[in-house]
Amino acid sequence: MQAEQLTAAIVIIGNEILSGKTQDLNVQFIATELSNLGIRLKEVRVVADIEADIIEAVNALRAKYTYIFTTGGIGPTHDDITSQTIAKAFADEYTLNEKAKEKIEQYLIAQKREIRPDHLRMAYMPKSAEILLNHETGAPGFKIGNVFVMAGIPYIMQSIFQEAKKFLKSGKPIISKSIEAYISEGAIAQQFSDLQDKYPEIEMGSYPFKTGERWGTSLVLRGDNAELIDKLMLALEDIIKNVAK
Amino acid sequence: MQAEQLTAAIVIIGNEILSGKTQDLNVQFIATELSNLGIRLKEVRVVADIEADIIEAVNALRAKYTYIFTTGGIGPTHDDITSQTIAKAFADEYTLNEKAKEKIEQYLIAQKREIRPDHLRMAYMPKSAEILLNHETGAPGFKIGNVFVMAGIPYIMQSIFQEAKKFLKSGKPIISKSIEAYISEGAIAQQFSDLQDKYPEIEMGSYPFKTGERWGTSLVLRGDNAELIDKLMLALEDIIKNVAK
Repeated sequence: MQAEQLTAAIVIIGNEILSGKTQDLNVQFIATELSNLGIRLKEVRVVADIEADIIEAVNALRAKYTYIFTTGGIGPTHDDITSQTIAKAFADEYTLNEKAKEKIEQYLIAQKREIRPDHLRMAYMPKSAEILLNHETGAPGFKIGNVFVMAGIPYIMQSIFQEAKKFLKSGKPIISKSIEAYISEGAIAQQFSDLQDKYPEIEMGSYPFKTGERWGTSLVLRGDNAELIDKLMLALEDIIKNVAK
Repeated sequence: MQAEQLTAAIVIIGNEILSGKTQDLNVQFIATELSNLGIRLKEVRVVADIEADIIEAVNALRAKYTYIFTTGGIGPTHDDITSQTIAKAFADEYTLNEKAKEKIEQYLIAQKREIRPDHLRMAYMPKSAEILLNHETGAPGFKIGNVFVMAGIPYIMQSIFQEAKKFLKSGKPIISKSIEAYISEGAIAQQFSDLQDKYPEIEMGSYPFKTGERWGTSLVLRGDNAELIDKLMLALEDIIKNVAK
């Protein structure tokens, strides 16, 4: 029996990424976590803080993949429109979540800070959402259907992601092994391609790199069959030795 | 008369980004360059090295935005499928480009390296493509319609992007100014929102940051009206002073 393939996509809601102001740091974290869980990240989209754009991306992707993760746009200011937009995408009511309110208030009280209406804006979410605790700054993310809504600030996102993990099915971890050699991509292309044809179940990629003035190639094998990957690593070493001769 | 709004999207073709192996560094560079040219980056998609996924993304986006930039997948190995896939997306022939061949050969000769058939694979592209010179490693990118196909390695991509720029229309540069203050996002949310309502032509965003244990908020104004942005910066300074009292 073929196991279900678990797949995922990320939607980054972020004018600050599209303007070049900020470097995204969330994709690599989520991608690595998903690999360890045996979930294949298939697509990432960065969209602007525009309702129609967010709805289009979320609805297209949630129909296509097992899990969708969004980052960004759940703060207290007018440009934070993710929560109400996700409610619209699910045709759900946008309403105050009492548990979220409690968590935000607890955090502000612990910080000896005033509770303002703008803070409570972060407690509004789709009615059928379940909150995802944020152990860093109180204001939770949430889960609705197969969509996990998280903050954009990396360390807060990572805290919420740990909560999201409790809801994820997992498969065999996806293992990645690589071998680096000072040969050109062109020199190994044919034999590497033949190997890929023989073992289509393993993803094989080649990436050139440069150390000082010297070019090399990194060959990467990726898949969930650890034994086969180890065997193919040995085959690659042989190919490299012959090319380097 | 309203000037045409110039827009763009990026398609990153990269299993290595989706697996978490590599951190993308191209979006921020391209985003910043486009802002300076007055072109608004509206969307980024990261897709796997899978023909159907690349075609879907490129065709959806090229119909929607003024310019599309792709990065990655134009090297000499079997996993480099961007060029033939773009040919398919345009229903164009995938064929040897003589100018590209010449550039690759010149580079290899200058490097005193052997010319292999796998190197010449990088000279194949859609028949109606125009090459974009790569002053770093010879193998060019190309332009077809409103799609600019570039390498994934940042410094090579940047070289090709300089050539792509020659084909781009430009508008008024998009200016971004920001002000940082040690106030919470919640404290300024209402007044910031009122300001946005009054000046919808300026994009206003607020981003929390943390220095040590201290939280602050970065308020960003973005648009092509430099004078108005300067005026609003002063208004923001006043708002912050009042909040901080």
